[in-house]
Amino acid sequence: MSQLIKPDKPIKISVDAMGGDYAPGEIVKGAIQAARKLGVELFLVGIKDKIETEIEKLDTDGLSINIIAAKDVIVDGEQAAYAVMKKPDSSVVIAAKMVKDGKADGMISAGPTGAIMVAALHHMGTIPGMERPVICTPIIGFAAQTVIVDLGANIGCQPYQFVEFAAAGSVYAMTQLGIERPTVGLLNVGAEKGKGYDIIKEAYELLEKSGLNFIGNVEGMDIPRGKVNVVVCDGFVGNILIKFSEGLGRIAANWMRAEIGNKMQSNDLNKVVDNFYWHMSPGSTYGGIPLCGVDGVVSVAHGNSRADQIENTIRNTKAAIESGFVSKLKEEFETIRKRINPAGAA
Amino acid sequence: MSQLIKPDKPIKISVDAMGGDYAPGEIVKGAIQAARKLGVELFLVGIKDKIETEIEKLDTDGLSINIIAAKDVIVDGEQAAYAVMKKPDSSVVIAAKMVKDGKADGMISAGPTGAIMVAALHHMGTIPGMERPVICTPIIGFAAQTVIVDLGANIGCQPYQFVEFAAAGSVYAMTQLGIERPTVGLLNVGAEKGKGYDIIKEAYELLEKSGLNFIGNVEGMDIPRGKVNVVVCDGFVGNILIKFSEGLGRIAANWMRAEIGNKMQSNDLNKVVDNFYWHMSPGSTYGGIPLCGVDGVVSVAHGNSRADQIENTIRNTKAAIESGFVSKLKEEFETIRKRINPAGAA
Repeated sequence: MSQLIKPDKPIKISVDAMGGDYAPGEIVKGAIQAARKLGVELFLVGIKDKIETEIEKLDTDGLSINIIAAKDVIVDGEQAAYAVMKKPDSSVVIAAKMVKDGKADGMISAGPTGAIMVAALHHMGTIPGMERPVICTPIIGFAAQTVIVDLGANIGCQPYQFVEFAAAGSVYAMTQLGIERPTVGLLNVGAEKGKGYDIIKEAYELLEKSGLNFIGNVEGMDIPRGKVNVVVCDGFVGNILIKFSEGLGRIAANWMRAEIGNKMQSNDLNKVVDNFYWHMSPGSTYGGIPLCGVDGVVSVAHGNSRADQIENTIRNTKAAIESGFVSKLKEEFETIRKRINPAGAA
Repeated sequence: MSQLIKPDKPIKISVDAMGGDYAPGEIVKGAIQAARKLGVELFLVGIKDKIETEIEKLDTDGLSINIIAAKDVIVDGEQAAYAVMKKPDSSVVIAAKMVKDGKADGMISAGPTGAIMVAALHHMGTIPGMERPVICTPIIGFAAQTVIVDLGANIGCQPYQFVEFAAAGSVYAMTQLGIERPTVGLLNVGAEKGKGYDIIKEAYELLEKSGLNFIGNVEGMDIPRGKVNVVVCDGFVGNILIKFSEGLGRIAANWMRAEIGNKMQSNDLNKVVDNFYWHMSPGSTYGGIPLCGVDGVVSVAHGNSRADQIENTIRNTKAAIESGFVSKLKEEFETIRKRINPAGAA
């Protein structure tokens, strides 16, 4: 159903080489892997000599790799809006600016989410109907048709934001998962209306009037069993949930390997454990995904990404560019906005 | 290290026979199982003829079962404080009153948590230093030395409540897990100070000054890996997490059984799968546990408890009574209160 854009020229992606726990080493390594496998043209943005040092360790024969010098780096713990303003020459800001200026078709960063968000908002803005971007994806492989919104881009939300999350999640489910009229549930501590704290209760009221396919509250156990296509929650809760399942998947996979041990052929065991880990935490394999709602393709990779996750993030970014992720979001959002009523008024 | 109280007379437990999705059938069945195995004296509180109908189906020869008539039932969706006031003859209120009056040593209910809380508060009150009770237990078997507070008794919390949670969790870890000076972490979206919404940021400040063994923020992945002994969070988040891991455990165990299937001997497979499920969701096996902070033993069972979970809840309740759960909590709380400063003042 997707109209693929197959450009004549290779897709260009700017890579914040300085963002992430293992930057720049693993970022550069992952980027080179991606350039080799995916035929993309990459712009590594960051401190020039540090990137060069990393590149020298690798085989880059025949690859199209460009280094874009940045003077600054935004690190975890800085106040995002202030840091982006104060550091226009930081790697994440330059990477974003390249997309705005049409020098890149998309960008990726494993730096602080807040800084990526602000840099993207400042240079690209949002699509009509979204005040702020969200992070939105399935978090459990057992429920691959269930997306969670928001996964950490928005912390401490107001009621109307839950309606935006529901709309964004619905559009994501329609465009990315091919679901025609996605069901939406509000993550809560009980099934009955009236559960939760005041903001959640108000969000329920707004969702009821939103025109979206809202089926009511869902609880924690409804996520892995895929009860609805879109689970809306504050980014605070979503972020804790996705990290919890990642950590749990890792611990459980190690346990399984030790527990099953010699009771199964090692070939079979490896397959089962890898498959299990994917089901527990597909995101750890996927790599980062594009922010949903930015008017440009901006992928957020996990801060602890290694080369393989960076490679996968670039793969996802390329796929989003090719499939017209942003224009499809805009289009479907326009349709949904005719139904939606974020203020809940009659 | 616990000083066991072995009473001459059998321990008496009042059972809210009407609370829970499968009440009264599964509640009565579980109670009879417990009476048979544990030698406790049970008081089944509820609509008399309904309980009698269930008892007739079962073998109760030689058991000490008493029926205490109640006229009313508090159901999910009722406003708890109002319902408890309006229905003094409801099963959960009468069960609580029996503990207050010394007719029972403890009680259990699988009814709405809010109603159990209010009934317990109204008739027993809290121990000194706790304004409201909390639900506090390990939620992941891989991290059996890590308790989460609160798991759903308190929704939409103020900053000072996080200090109470931390104190209660510390006391729980000391008395129930034998940990001398439990480490405490604040569940958040990042490791650095300053993360989260305003209430969380204020809670961080108060925890820093609390005199507890506070080590800072922890993230979702830190729970399964057991980074700290006590993870404090709003009951909204805790409740979603415990239900999420329950649901995930069930789905993952079924998947594992199908996936491994004929690659392993069925005997081995059953053991691995059962063991795995326990590690993912020990609470589903445990049954309900006592509220932490009530001046009496009041166990909250999951609303979807079947007979086996009710039996286990009664087992946990008996153990709490025998081990002097409440008096040990009081004692340790007294020690900790000398250090603690919930208002965060100098």
